[in-house]
Amino acid sequence: MYYPEPISKLIDSFTKLPGIGPKTAVRLAFFVLNMKEDDVLDFAKALVNAKRELTHCSTCGHITDQDPCSICSDGTRDESVICVVQDPKDVIAMEKMREFNGRYHVLHGTISPMDGIGPEDINVPPLIDRLKDEKVNELILATNPNVEGEATAMYISRLVKPSGIKISRIASGLPMGGDLEYADEVTLSKAMEGRREL
Amino acid sequence: MYYPEPISKLIDSFTKLPGIGPKTAVRLAFFVLNMKEDDVLDFAKALVNAKRELTHCSTCGHITDQDPCSICSDGTRDESVICVVQDPKDVIAMEKMREFNGRYHVLHGTISPMDGIGPEDINVPPLIDRLKDEKVNELILATNPNVEGEATAMYISRLVKPSGIKISRIASGLPMGGDLEYADEVTLSKAMEGRREL
Repeated sequence: MYYPEPISKLIDSFTKLPGIGPKTAVRLAFFVLNMKEDDVLDFAKALVNAKRELTHCSTCGHITDQDPCSICSDGTRDESVICVVQDPKDVIAMEKMREFNGRYHVLHGTISPMDGIGPEDINVPPLIDRLKDEKVNELILATNPNVEGEATAMYISRLVKPSGIKISRIASGLPMGGDLEYADEVTLSKAMEGRREL
Repeated sequence: MYYPEPISKLIDSFTKLPGIGPKTAVRLAFFVLNMKEDDVLDFAKALVNAKRELTHCSTCGHITDQDPCSICSDGTRDESVICVVQDPKDVIAMEKMREFNGRYHVLHGTISPMDGIGPEDINVPPLIDRLKDEKVNELILATNPNVEGEATAMYISRLVKPSGIKISRIASGLPMGGDLEYADEVTLSKAMEGRREL
């Protein structure tokens, strides 16, 4: 036992976080020793509160400290459009854009038969129920543009199509500021495929 | 406000740690949401305990949860040798070596006139007091081999020399497994200077 117990426990806790190896954990633990006591208490409280107070919105599945979440309970937002995303972080990314005024549905994952994850294992059935109950005109599928994301979008699209709701998929192509020279073939092919008349 | 308050507070707390930027903080905070509640509570407790229970040993200045620390209170260790280091982490590094059986003195910094840090601002005066009280035969100066570390070692050496205590400085040279080809000139010059007859 090289470290006094209180600090070795803290090092262990830091090591459990993703991307933090033993050396970084030691550095962070020693940093905490030199922090103001109030800041450390705030940190500890923030950890416990984040874990205890946050739940998933029973409507859209976004993380929230009130149910329904602030987006679902916001009367000024357009109920007729639902944007389907994989992860709560994607909701934040969309909100930062400040352009979308509809609602969300968070899937918490993608369909991935290789890992044994089917549509029932992610938040798909509640989406179907929402589409029955609410007055939704458009469903925007904003899962990630990779194999699982595309497959999930395709699955939901086929499932919802018969109901007559307009279904769209976010565009794939070159990122803004990107460089044709360095784009991979799939992205370039998607960019060509999705070209628009000017 | 994009994030619910409990998680944005946690993100803020993570951002205060060194080397953790806003994106990593978000990733860590979301990871905490998916951790088991017990693990989160342990983490929070570890933070508070590390801050509250750890102090500096009144003898050597090493971090400890009991005073004097386990090294200073260990009767099997050689009282006659004191190894002077800059930082509690250096004590851990020395202990990992499992070869040194003396005691330590942690300076908590180095003399750095450019930053207005003199010998009185670091743990030097208690070292001088220790040398008067305890039966110390040898003082090993193990501050880092850089400008501040060398200057601090030099200062302590001059201060203690008149008392007749044997003073040594850890060797500088090529690290084991190192490569002559890639060594910088100063290291190489130190390695030549410190050469030993075989």
